[in-house]
Amino acid sequence: IQMGLAENQLSLDLIEQWSVDHPEASICTAQGASQFRRIANFQDYHGLPEFREAMAKFMGQVRGGKVTFDPDRVVMCGGATGAQDTLAFCLADPGDAYLVPTPYYPAFDRDCCWRSGVKLLPIECHSSNNFTLTREALVSAYDGARRQGVRVRGILITNPSNPLGTTMDRGTLAMLAAFATERRVHLNCDEIYAGSVFAKPGFVSIAEVIERDAPGCNRDLVHIAYSLSKDFGLPGFRVGIVYSYNDDVVACARKMSSFGLVSSQTQHFLARMLADAEFMARFLAESARRLAARHDRFVAGLREVGIACLPGNAGLFSWMDLRGMLRERTHDAELELWRVIVHRVKLNVSPGTSFHCNEPGWFRVCYANM
Amino acid sequence: IQMGLAENQLSLDLIEQWSVDHPEASICTAQGASQFRRIANFQDYHGLPEFREAMAKFMGQVRGGKVTFDPDRVVMCGGATGAQDTLAFCLADPGDAYLVPTPYYPAFDRDCCWRSGVKLLPIECHSSNNFTLTREALVSAYDGARRQGVRVRGILITNPSNPLGTTMDRGTLAMLAAFATERRVHLNCDEIYAGSVFAKPGFVSIAEVIERDAPGCNRDLVHIAYSLSKDFGLPGFRVGIVYSYNDDVVACARKMSSFGLVSSQTQHFLARMLADAEFMARFLAESARRLAARHDRFVAGLREVGIACLPGNAGLFSWMDLRGMLRERTHDAELELWRVIVHRVKLNVSPGTSFHCNEPGWFRVCYANM
Repeated sequence: IQMGLAENQLSLDLIEQWSVDHPEASICTAQGASQFRRIANFQDYHGLPEFREAMAKFMGQVRGGKVTFDPDRVVMCGGATGAQDTLAFCLADPGDAYLVPTPYYPAFDRDCCWRSGVKLLPIECHSSNNFTLTREALVSAYDGARRQGVRVRGILITNPSNPLGTTMDRGTLAMLAAFATERRVHLNCDEIYAGSVFAKPGFVSIAEVIERDAPGCNRDLVHIAYSLSKDFGLPGFRVGIVYSYNDDVVACARKMSSFGLVSSQTQHFLARMLADAEFMARFLAESARRLAARHDRFVAGLREVGIACLPGNAGLFSWMDLRGMLRERTHDAELELWRVIVHRVKLNVSPGTSFHCNEPGWFRVCYANM
Repeated sequence: IQMGLAENQLSLDLIEQWSVDHPEASICTAQGASQFRRIANFQDYHGLPEFREAMAKFMGQVRGGKVTFDPDRVVMCGGATGAQDTLAFCLADPGDAYLVPTPYYPAFDRDCCWRSGVKLLPIECHSSNNFTLTREALVSAYDGARRQGVRVRGILITNPSNPLGTTMDRGTLAMLAAFATERRVHLNCDEIYAGSVFAKPGFVSIAEVIERDAPGCNRDLVHIAYSLSKDFGLPGFRVGIVYSYNDDVVACARKMSSFGLVSSQTQHFLARMLADAEFMARFLAESARRLAARHDRFVAGLREVGIACLPGNAGLFSWMDLRGMLRERTHDAELELWRVIVHRVKLNVSPGTSFHCNEPGWFRVCYANM
């Protein structure tokens, strides 16, 4: 059974139904064909104005309506992958480093490093405090990098976290904003699971923190990556967004967006869907309900057989604690156990080492891709 | 009147009609919705197999069926822009140069240089031989670059040419293949107007030349960029293709294609359309007929008022000779005349200087975007 992919298949039927109910949103239907020529021919590297507007409005809606986003700061990229690559190009030079709390999404090694030559340096987090990022761990990683002569250009966080399935609390975000301002490093917040929060404590976006809790922080250092791949289950559509509070970064990313624009066919369709605020509210509520149901059933099942998970409230996965099943507390023993799970139990799950987790025995299990 | 955009609006009605007649090709119709989930969720960085297959087959069809293309060498990029950026990344290091025959498409300065740091060095071509690229001009540019200490990594050609509206003859292509092999430089052939050839002499692709006319040339040095933006008038769909005969370049471009994949919604739709060989044959013939009619009417109209154009057989534009109207033979005089054309005659055309043409008095006029 494939439990290794962070795919969201739980609510695609709602989008499919919306699409069939709104043939005017597609340029490939009799009802929408009058737009075919205009849309197919469109090639402004800013993207369709209605798409940027709908996206900005939706980004506010998905963050509980507590913050507003400016369509002129919405820059299109080829998926979240392209968004991180673009940010790395705009923020750093080859050889510069981002600090990244562990465990972290392994494909950051592709997104930030392959083309841009950025290095990722871990900030070690621990199970003793549920892998919460502390200022001490951050300072220690920062000082360590400086001692090695590496130039730290940014801190890269995922909130909600992949693979932890947790959200970052307001205090931690305010601490990060303060640290970034103080040391003049960028704060790159990957919020691609913002719409996949299904339980308390709710989601707090960095956007809310810099507007309300950390008004003194330097906004020029704050950037958000967003995408519709996870919250909507539409990774094939390659919708990545860079939202930056820094005018120079917006200008640079916009200049580079010619290389990764979203298909105008897809922009046109999504602009209409995202602008349907009533449907969006219904979708987000139903998607959260389904995620919660799936999560609760999965965690309860594991609990029955004596397996615990880190308490989670977001994402498409749980962070499963199998430390008690290890032959010994090493990464080798973790991989040994992983092979048993894959080959004998026939479950494809992901070992913690692949997320650069320094504590052996944790596994990410995805439950939303079936 | 906008005559500055190389857009093809002449045959979009055929595609629009095909789309309405084939609702099963769209995932957003009742007939196609059963595919919605599978397609929207698709995220293999190779792209949909049926898209690569249909594209490879179509690339052969558009080149007169004289050559075949291997779907496993078809790599997806974000438009022709992304294709050139990807090729530049794969073939050259920052500071390396491409030699480019003049006049050339000005956005190569963006596509090849902005992100990849490649330099473009002109190969001077002249009206005396209808701007044909000669071996002498090529050798002279190559030697000039070497004398400046610049490392030449490739030759970048557009065939059919933008802005000339002409195709390159077989002999010139064979000469280029031989030169590339001899000096070990890459031959980067932008063939995005391959399906927009409307008169004799017909189009010869570099693919045909290396298969038939220059069997001894080093295929590892030959790369083709293709796109559906021009031949189909679909720039909004962001379909760019790198087709390389070099396994390492295919592997590198494929690795980087995560940053610029085509939306799966668009891949799915186009896979069905491109695979409809009967429609494609009809489309290509009708598109050529309409381009020829537009071209002939335009050139005849100019001839009546005493204005000549370079004899052209391809593309969406003519290369208009207004040398006789210049106050003097300088680029300043050309821009002076251009301002008169734009502001008084109210025609938006493009001056030759913007294409790095070294002979003042030439203008590109697009006639297919209305």
